[in-house]
Amino acid sequence: MAKAEDFFFSGLDKSGDTGNKLESNVTQVNVNQIPGLNTLGISLARLDFAPYGVNPPHTHPRGTEILTVLEGTLYVGFVTSNPNNQLFTKVLNKGDVFVFPQGLIHFQFNYGKTNAVAIAGLSSQNPGVITIANAVFGAKPPISDYVLAKAFQLDKKTVDWLQAQFWMDNNN
Amino acid sequence: MAKAEDFFFSGLDKSGDTGNKLESNVTQVNVNQIPGLNTLGISLARLDFAPYGVNPPHTHPRGTEILTVLEGTLYVGFVTSNPNNQLFTKVLNKGDVFVFPQGLIHFQFNYGKTNAVAIAGLSSQNPGVITIANAVFGAKPPISDYVLAKAFQLDKKTVDWLQAQFWMDNNN
Amino acid sequence: MAKAEDFFFSGLDKSGDTGNKLESNVTQVNVNQIPGLNTLGISLARLDFAPYGVNPPHTHPRGTEILTVLEGTLYVGFVTSNPNNQLFTKVLNKGDVFVFPQGLIHFQFNYGKTNAVAIAGLSSQNPGVITIANAVFGAKPPISDYVLAKAFQLDKKTVDWLQAQFWMDNNN
Amino acid sequence: MAKAEDFFFSGLDKSGDTGNKLESNVTQVNVNQIPGLNTLGISLARLDFAPYGVNPPHTHPRGTEILTVLEGTLYVGFVTSNPNNQLFTKVLNKGDVFVFPQGLIHFQFNYGKTNAVAIAGLSSQNPGVITIANAVFGAKPPISDYVLAKAFQLDKKTVDWLQAQFWMDNNN
Amino acid sequence: MAKAEDFFFSGLDKSGDTGNKLESNVTQVNVNQIPGLNTLGISLARLDFAPYGVNPPHTHPRGTEILTVLEGTLYVGFVTSNPNNQLFTKVLNKGDVFVFPQGLIHFQFNYGKTNAVAIAGLSSQNPGVITIANAVFGAKPPISDYVLAKAFQLDKKTVDWLQAQFWMDNNN
Amino acid sequence: MAKAEDFFFSGLDKSGDTGNKLESNVTQVNVNQIPGLNTLGISLARLDFAPYGVNPPHTHPRGTEILTVLEGTLYVGFVTSNPNNQLFTKVLNKGDVFVFPQGLIHFQFNYGKTNAVAIAGLSSQNPGVITIANAVFGAKPPISDYVLAKAFQLDKKTVDWLQAQFWMDNNN
Repeated sequence: MAKAEDFFFSGLDKSGDTGNKLESNVTQVNVNQIPGLNTLGISLARLDFAPYGVNPPHTHPRGTEILTVLEGTLYVGFVTSNPNNQLFTKVLNKGDVFVFPQGLIHFQFNYGKTNAVAIAGLSSQNPGVITIANAVFGAKPPISDYVLAKAFQLDKKTVDWLQAQFWMDNNN
Repeated sequence: MAKAEDFFFSGLDKSGDTGNKLESNVTQVNVNQIPGLNTLGISLARLDFAPYGVNPPHTHPRGTEILTVLEGTLYVGFVTSNPNNQLFTKVLNKGDVFVFPQGLIHFQFNYGKTNAVAIAGLSSQNPGVITIANAVFGAKPPISDYVLAKAFQLDKKTVDWLQAQFWMDNNN
Repeated sequence: MAKAEDFFFSGLDKSGDTGNKLESNVTQVNVNQIPGLNTLGISLARLDFAPYGVNPPHTHPRGTEILTVLEGTLYVGFVTSNPNNQLFTKVLNKGDVFVFPQGLIHFQFNYGKTNAVAIAGLSSQNPGVITIANAVFGAKPPISDYVLAKAFQLDKKTVDWLQAQFWMDNNN
Repeated sequence: MAKAEDFFFSGLDKSGDTGNKLESNVTQVNVNQIPGLNTLGISLARLDFAPYGVNPPHTHPRGTEILTVLEGTLYVGFVTSNPNNQLFTKVLNKGDVFVFPQGLIHFQFNYGKTNAVAIAGLSSQNPGVITIANAVFGAKPPISDYVLAKAFQLDKKTVDWLQAQFWMDNNN
Repeated sequence: MAKAEDFFFSGLDKSGDTGNKLESNVTQVNVNQIPGLNTLGISLARLDFAPYGVNPPHTHPRGTEILTVLEGTLYVGFVTSNPNNQLFTKVLNKGDVFVFPQGLIHFQFNYGKTNAVAIAGLSSQNPGVITIANAVFGAKPPISDYVLAKAFQLDKKTVDWLQAQFWMDNNN
Repeated sequence: MAKAEDFFFSGLDKSGDTGNKLESNVTQVNVNQIPGLNTLGISLARLDFAPYGVNPPHTHPRGTEILTVLEGTLYVGFVTSNPNNQLFTKVLNKGDVFVFPQGLIHFQFNYGKTNAVAIAGLSSQNPGVITIANAVFGAKPPISDYVLAKAFQLDKKTVDWLQAQFWMDNNN
């Protein structure tokens, strides 16, 4: 039998830990945290940014994101599909809202000298996150360095160096 | 051709006007405000409450709602379908999250002595709002008072009085 | 292994018992009665009305209803979402058909001096029913009378009296 | 602007004309008759049968059907997909309900000496009807008789004769 | 835990056995062969034809098909729904592509003197196949010969003879 | 009025031009080429590879891909979402089939000394393609080099160099 707790989560007021290379942190509240969301097609997330922190280019394979800024200033953008790969950007201040359509690569960047906080809704109870750099250079096992060198116009040595780095996941 | 402005909205940091009988106000950000949301299945809303303000029992005919409290304390609940009509409630403080499944009657009430603010995601670009009292007693033209008296176990006089009232819509 | 009985139900020719306060009765035939309906997105219902019987304002959270009158005369209607809350009504005689869009509050009322019967199709194998008065005033446990008084412009005493009543579910 | 008439249809109490070779008739009430059904995922139909009348094997390419008998006795069935092609049948009397899953070939036959009438719900506002014999032998222009002879294990002469017949559509 | 093999199938280069009455063969690659396709809404098939081989009139109850010819020449077609039952056909050579919309009756015929091969995509992980002749005349148990005689304008003796034949399923 | 040509495309037997840096080419056949695919949820593509050619890491924001090899040998793979970013790979020979689930980053690489050809089905009439390197380093206007340097652990100079390159789209 369902109970109120199945529809409840606590702690989205807590700032995520931005003490990392990206200086950003995403706290997800989806069906993994709230079982009552099953089949209901929605979830939330909180985004925290230290000054100059970056939520790096990523996609949600199963969801559109709509974000509003609670504190600070964010420079955000998404890139359209081939062949145009057009970049749409906005500087967002407190109370501004921006949409990142399903599956498109997007990023957020704390443009300002103070912390920034945003809340986002996502159109799936399990939207997924793919951090591009992590999936490309941090896949386990690694993607063939020949493939990546050719795809990214890098020499193999640079690819190997990239693949040897630690690729942090800033999503919790 | 699409442009960044089609995915943008400004002003969700502004408190909605709670100077009304319900002492609450909902600011919607859906496909009517952001044309780029078309077909993308998501929208946002901001909820403001004066002390003891009420967002009265209502449904979203085309969407589930997931809400998080930014300020203050809310007592919230939803009622399951027939035959059980079970009430699920929670007292929500800052950072708490609660889910109101699609089509179920739900409400929020500012339990505390200070203003309360919440942000909600909804699983449709056009979820719709039906304030129960307004649709039942404030329909234009009015629903037959015989039907309403029988349905609500009220005498016709009380129904007629209710139908003569002003039924404010606290949604913008 | 599936068998013909999984797609079969018997008894929709039987009049539901209208010997109750609402003088109406709804017999549902959905996935709970016919397991073969699972995932197929449709169900049926039979509606019976004694003279002046009312199927009170209700919604189906997961389905649109299309109804045809087999016997008698029904006055029916639905109310659109906020902000308009426009009432659309029709008097239906034998052979007339009317549509109640998903999630909207609607009702049927036997306008005539004889019994009335209708058959309805619903666009879900499990559309759900929410009788508004029952969910609002008959929720278990009860919704805060402060909230309901404010929402319905009633004094607390009237709300308390309403909450003390028996709220019959005319759906089987 | 929508109006009540957009959700209304009249005349489903009228018996369809069964004075044809199949001695059956289907009256459809879908988005072509009721524009308000657009996007709502449901429609109705009335089926009339003279004694021994047949609603011949057909499919609905975009919908499941759920039928209830109002008068008379029907022998109904559907055939499952390859490889089993299992026939599921039932004799239906007044008040019996049967389901024909989306896209499966099904038929109804008036088993009795009196007229039979049924009402069906379909899980699409535009479910479509494909009468198998009509689409196979009455296609315009005709399907290659070589193909049909090979497919149906008939000699070409029989196929040609069949293709020369009039293939009545009993759906209105 | 998922593994690469859950997304893999081997053998679509092998010609299906066309040594049968229809002189055609379909090899399906759907969720039954590749469990990782579950919920992903797509599958493949390979079609082989001996000279003058026929893939007889059939439907996919849950999917649209898009086919491209790898070798040989096919005469293909589909028939629209009632009331028009219009036949759309094309002669397809190597590299030609044709679409068979969901649920519509369609066929392919090797028009040429050499083998023909095609690859098709289908818009479901489990589209299903209904070979019309098999489902109509080869259902198990058989459909009433009275019904089929009336539906197909055949005498009962011909129907009985047809029902006594072996109806091969050319789908693997 | 629809006609057979609306469901037809010609030329998928033609090898795409692989005389480019990636030594690969993708020919798409979707709703832009075949208007009759509208709403039908499927499309095809042909993939050509010169020896050691690469179809670089990319996603389809609105579709799952299922591919079969017609000629040659491909090394293929996809990467799962965060936090695991697990790489699933296979070496595919003629007749092998592999699935790339919706929205996940995937690639194909011609492992062999001869040309390779594959045919793919995609679960949308308009699946979209996002070549990761192109969208990240070739977006127009460019993404902030500060953001990319931080996201990809590269120095700004390398990012600037990458952004100055020509990012070819191998999709037609």
